[in-house]
Amino acid sequence: MDEPVTPRTTVRRHPERGAYDRATIDAILDEALYCHVATLVEGSPRIIPTIHARSGDVLYVHGSTASRTLRALRDGAEVCVAVTLLDGLVLARSAFNHSMNYRSVMVYGTTREVTDPGEKWEAQAALVDHVVHGRAGHVRMPDEQELKQTSIFAVSLAEASAKVRTGPPKDRDEDYGLPVWAGELPLRLEPQDPIADPRLDAGLPPPANVTRYRR
Amino acid sequence: MDEPVTPRTTVRRHPERGAYDRATIDAILDEALYCHVATLVEGSPRIIPTIHARSGDVLYVHGSTASRTLRALRDGAEVCVAVTLLDGLVLARSAFNHSMNYRSVMVYGTTREVTDPGEKWEAQAALVDHVVHGRAGHVRMPDEQELKQTSIFAVSLAEASAKVRTGPPKDRDEDYGLPVWAGELPLRLEPQDPIADPRLDAGLPPPANVTRYRR
Repeated sequence: MDEPVTPRTTVRRHPERGAYDRATIDAILDEALYCHVATLVEGSPRIIPTIHARSGDVLYVHGSTASRTLRALRDGAEVCVAVTLLDGLVLARSAFNHSMNYRSVMVYGTTREVTDPGEKWEAQAALVDHVVHGRAGHVRMPDEQELKQTSIFAVSLAEASAKVRTGPPKDRDEDYGLPVWAGELPLRLEPQDPIADPRLDAGLPPPANVTRYRR
Repeated sequence: MDEPVTPRTTVRRHPERGAYDRATIDAILDEALYCHVATLVEGSPRIIPTIHARSGDVLYVHGSTASRTLRALRDGAEVCVAVTLLDGLVLARSAFNHSMNYRSVMVYGTTREVTDPGEKWEAQAALVDHVVHGRAGHVRMPDEQELKQTSIFAVSLAEASAKVRTGPPKDRDEDYGLPVWAGELPLRLEPQDPIADPRLDAGLPPPANVTRYRR
């Protein structure tokens, strides 16, 4: 299942942090709640933050047909999709060796607009389930008009790589004696108490996939 | 202090979410721990996740002279810098009206490599202080060799916009009667207990800007 390493996916800066196995790549894509898609608009780089869902070897990214930027993605646009999970701050004794612990994925490819109604419906369900596991089975799924107002683009995972940093800072030997606290400050994206829609029927409690939400 | 709205910074999709005042833009840039920089490498879009710090009307982004991608930024490269803060999931009764609450900033500009030693030093200090307030005053600051190994790029905030979504989902009128829980699930990036570097002198406690860390 590992993908061939291409010039673009080769991790050159800190090569020891590079990972090319699909299990690592998939786990990062599946945990991240959103991605950044870079493409060209009139020759200039543009970023679209949006949601994504992986389905096998394909990454679906969500758009709206009302969005000018997403219209630029339509016809086989070349894209770079980045997903970044921040795991903590790495505090060294020297400014230079400060870093972050993170897990990131970079996907390079060309968009394919999803037009087949069946695939589009499945992709829409995958996007909802990616955000809250099992939710697509409980909500009203899109009607024909809503599907028309949604653009979904598929990007192959054939050219993808991950980069992962973990662990303590690495200082210069002579800096270890400095009287500076050094270490990691882990950070975690944590759910807070759910807030019911003010128009919600008071008899409806939040389901377990919301009250016990975790990535 | 508000910046003129340009065609690129005009928020067209959900224009009610657009914000162009510098106070909103600055607060988002200052809270976010990292950014995504999009640029062109050999004609293709490429994203670099990296850290940033704002200093007045300038956004500094950090690079390494060892990084091939960052070398592409060097000579006045056109960039799009995106910063995204995820505040929560917006769970609607219909798949179509699911959304996220977020605060995001997009900056368009051209990089200026910081070469003046004084400005580079100040930018390095701003980058460290951006991550942990006041830390630049406690760590060993870079020597000449380390400064040479660091690339810092300045991007003007003249062309920037923010986009903010808050509040409950907006469903279609006829969907409000569906027996589906709807509302917000707030998410927050929370610091965990600090982990001391295994090589740290056991007598050194973590400072207050680490134990009481907040953005």
